[in-house]
Amino acid sequence: MSELYEMLKPHLDKTYALNVALTMLSFDNSTAAPKNAIENTSKAIGLLSGEHYNALINEDVKRLLKELSTEQEQAFLSFEEKAIVKKLNKEFKQTAAIPPEEFQAFQILLAKAYPIWESAKNKNDYASFAPTLEEIIRYSKKFASYNQEEDQKLYDVQLDDYEEGFNMEILDGFFSKLRSALVPLVHKVNEKENAIQTEFLSQDYEIDKQKNFCRFLAEYIGFDFNRGVIAESEHPFTTELHNHDVRITNHFQKSQPDFSIFSVIHESGHALYEQGIDDAITMTPIGQGTSMGMHESQSRFYENNLGRSLPFWTPIYSRLQELFPKQLETVSLEQFYRAVNHAHSSLIRTEADELTYPFHIMIRYEIEKLIFEGNIPASELPAIWNQKYQEYLGVCPTTDTEGILQDMHWALGSFGYFPSYALGSAIAAQIYHHLKTVMPLDTYLEEGNLKPIQAYLNEHIHRFGGAKNTQELLKDMTGEPFNPDYYISYLTDKYTALYDL
Amino acid sequence: MSELYEMLKPHLDKTYALNVALTMLSFDNSTAAPKNAIENTSKAIGLLSGEHYNALINEDVKRLLKELSTEQEQAFLSFEEKAIVKKLNKEFKQTAAIPPEEFQAFQILLAKAYPIWESAKNKNDYASFAPTLEEIIRYSKKFASYNQEEDQKLYDVQLDDYEEGFNMEILDGFFSKLRSALVPLVHKVNEKENAIQTEFLSQDYEIDKQKNFCRFLAEYIGFDFNRGVIAESEHPFTTELHNHDVRITNHFQKSQPDFSIFSVIHESGHALYEQGIDDAITMTPIGQGTSMGMHESQSRFYENNLGRSLPFWTPIYSRLQELFPKQLETVSLEQFYRAVNHAHSSLIRTEADELTYPFHIMIRYEIEKLIFEGNIPASELPAIWNQKYQEYLGVCPTTDTEGILQDMHWALGSFGYFPSYALGSAIAAQIYHHLKTVMPLDTYLEEGNLKPIQAYLNEHIHRFGGAKNTQELLKDMTGEPFNPDYYISYLTDKYTALYDL
Repeated sequence: MSELYEMLKPHLDKTYALNVALTMLSFDNSTAAPKNAIENTSKAIGLLSGEHYNALINEDVKRLLKELSTEQEQAFLSFEEKAIVKKLNKEFKQTAAIPPEEFQAFQILLAKAYPIWESAKNKNDYASFAPTLEEIIRYSKKFASYNQEEDQKLYDVQLDDYEEGFNMEILDGFFSKLRSALVPLVHKVNEKENAIQTEFLSQDYEIDKQKNFCRFLAEYIGFDFNRGVIAESEHPFTTELHNHDVRITNHFQKSQPDFSIFSVIHESGHALYEQGIDDAITMTPIGQGTSMGMHESQSRFYENNLGRSLPFWTPIYSRLQELFPKQLETVSLEQFYRAVNHAHSSLIRTEADELTYPFHIMIRYEIEKLIFEGNIPASELPAIWNQKYQEYLGVCPTTDTEGILQDMHWALGSFGYFPSYALGSAIAAQIYHHLKTVMPLDTYLEEGNLKPIQAYLNEHIHRFGGAKNTQELLKDMTGEPFNPDYYISYLTDKYTALYDL
Repeated sequence: MSELYEMLKPHLDKTYALNVALTMLSFDNSTAAPKNAIENTSKAIGLLSGEHYNALINEDVKRLLKELSTEQEQAFLSFEEKAIVKKLNKEFKQTAAIPPEEFQAFQILLAKAYPIWESAKNKNDYASFAPTLEEIIRYSKKFASYNQEEDQKLYDVQLDDYEEGFNMEILDGFFSKLRSALVPLVHKVNEKENAIQTEFLSQDYEIDKQKNFCRFLAEYIGFDFNRGVIAESEHPFTTELHNHDVRITNHFQKSQPDFSIFSVIHESGHALYEQGIDDAITMTPIGQGTSMGMHESQSRFYENNLGRSLPFWTPIYSRLQELFPKQLETVSLEQFYRAVNHAHSSLIRTEADELTYPFHIMIRYEIEKLIFEGNIPASELPAIWNQKYQEYLGVCPTTDTEGILQDMHWALGSFGYFPSYALGSAIAAQIYHHLKTVMPLDTYLEEGNLKPIQAYLNEHIHRFGGAKNTQELLKDMTGEPFNPDYYISYLTDKYTALYDL
């Protein structure tokens, strides 16, 4: 046992406790808080955020981390403690590299930027947002440069921030394969628009029954209601206080039952990850999923690879039919399966299907690269955006509202975040392929027996939290690092069969 | 403007922000949190509580408060700032008087005491709780002695803590009037058990419809849903983050519609107080109702004085009948009014009716006096309890579970709290009498026009928060200090008429 580590713990505990408070207030704000509460409550949130920052970024912690990083001290640390010190060192270095007055100025800029973006989006007025975006880009690049290592490209700083060990070299390889293999496929699928019937999904589905079914689905997948709850919010999300309190939200619309159904499967995938974190690390800095990309791999694995497969629905489709006899009586399992996999190019990322989704990400990735490496001014971005949509997806936005203004990410200063979404899908496909080699996956699904799947993911991914990074987890589980080939094959095979190409 | 006061503000803001976090977590724990969350979450709560304590109880604040209390500095303070400094001085003095190691030992004792009490209650085994209660009493008396002023009785320290300006002299006067005027009335009412029909209230009332009606009632009374929400919990309560986020909870039982109906009226009374706090003081130490007793006066005024009156139901009873035609079609307004005022001695305080309720409190008050002033050992308390129930209410518990073990208050170390409940009813009656002299109260009720009532209470009570204490509020509004005579007359008149005595 390390005495120095014992001295670090009170700092970690305080940081954790304040994080619980902030998470709780944020969850409440999205689910329960009254309309007019936020103005007052945000003052408290601001103060708690400041306390949270100071609990970690201070001279005591700096000194302790330095001493704990020496070879001599590392010998006293457990595997998990080493991972915690490593993670804190990274966070500390990143944050401490930014002068506090610049950090604060950026926070103020971001607070103003969000409503400016929102209003620009509502009014289809990109010009009113461009100067603010330009400022956000300037700060983001400056902050990245503070953390830039020798020979490191600026955008790679951002990418490594969201997904440790990933960079443009890996992503360029990934996306170029995607482009060459799948752009032609997308165009072919687009031409067969009417090959799949989906009208029955636009009828009215009673919301109470949707709720019941979604609760059943969460439990079916393995969500533990003794250690989690489902709430409602405008946009579905997952959040957690610790491994015994994981919360997913859902959103219900009468004439779009597939939205709530696949949302709850998606969020349950996230939730299994968080509920599966080992008790020993849950309330520590490595007590959460290791990265955005790995988290998204778990949600998409359940939503798409399992949830949109025929074997998944084989044992439970009749239950859905019984709940909605009027709407589904005459719809076969096969028809339902085909409908929830209908693909077609569209303009809005969050509404995109499994096949076209990664191209929405590729476009954002290419633009972020141009921003960070090409110094393109903000004013020129909409034209590039529209041209890329035309090229890859064959559709072109007629307004910036349904074009470059659709996502809030850049208004929040999140550059390098988007690729995680596509990586998530690709990692999910790699895991899916691997699982098929180690267990009779489809048989399990057809038998309604999802426990062995969850157990395997828990054993090789979930329980480790942030103690291993994505590449380490993949290598230890599948024997190879990230490999996008499985994703390309998966999409090609699935959509070639579905559309009879 | 006082520069010293400006220096105090960051401490107040931090204390407030941590209080928001703790309130939120506590509300969530009672309404939404999953079953197995609390063990982990309580670690975070413990840490935040420690931060909350340290944010106020520290040398900086001590020095600032001392300097702000000088005559010279007071001249620079506003009315509200003076009230804040006064309140903080009191809190600081009380807390600082207790040696930290004793305070902590007491907290540990209390944490253990709650499950011991719970188990003793479940098993009807007072003996297993008595030694713990003895310890709690020993600490409570010791802590009271630290804050005892010269010539002050020990129990008066406790009473003043919950209700500034109140002591045994006032309460002895109050309860002796109650005893002599109302014990005979209670006995007479008990003899006429069957004079009022209540069976129709034990039928099945659909819970969804109860919920709808309770939401309507909250709004009808004046609850602002833009600045508040209703949730569900095991026991109804009211809590708040600030005046724009006030939360009430309710609990629904199929065969007891009057429970949810009068609970929502009660909690809405609390909520109007908190929603009515002035914007200028909401997030400060005086930004809440001034005391337990005054708070309870607002909830009981709405629940009993208004809510259980005939004029209140005149404009809205038909709405309830329409919701529940099967159950209420043949029940007249007058019958409904009589049923919700049915009185009869019983053993459980929380289930007591308006007439017998204060005697449950009187018994606890007299026992607390014996504890603090008479040094009665814990082992002798059950016999005293039972004898007093027999004497005042004419009923005698056959088990301690429905006797002395029924309330959690003493297990929580809350001595001096109970009287606030009875004071609340008495203050409510005083306000009710006063309102009848300044406005056509019954006419407003019959017209379904509750706004002028809320406006008057806001003008004279709510908006001040803790800037004035109970006696000051009563004097400024009604022209006289606390006067229990109105309560005695109110109950006498109401129940004499109801039971035709």
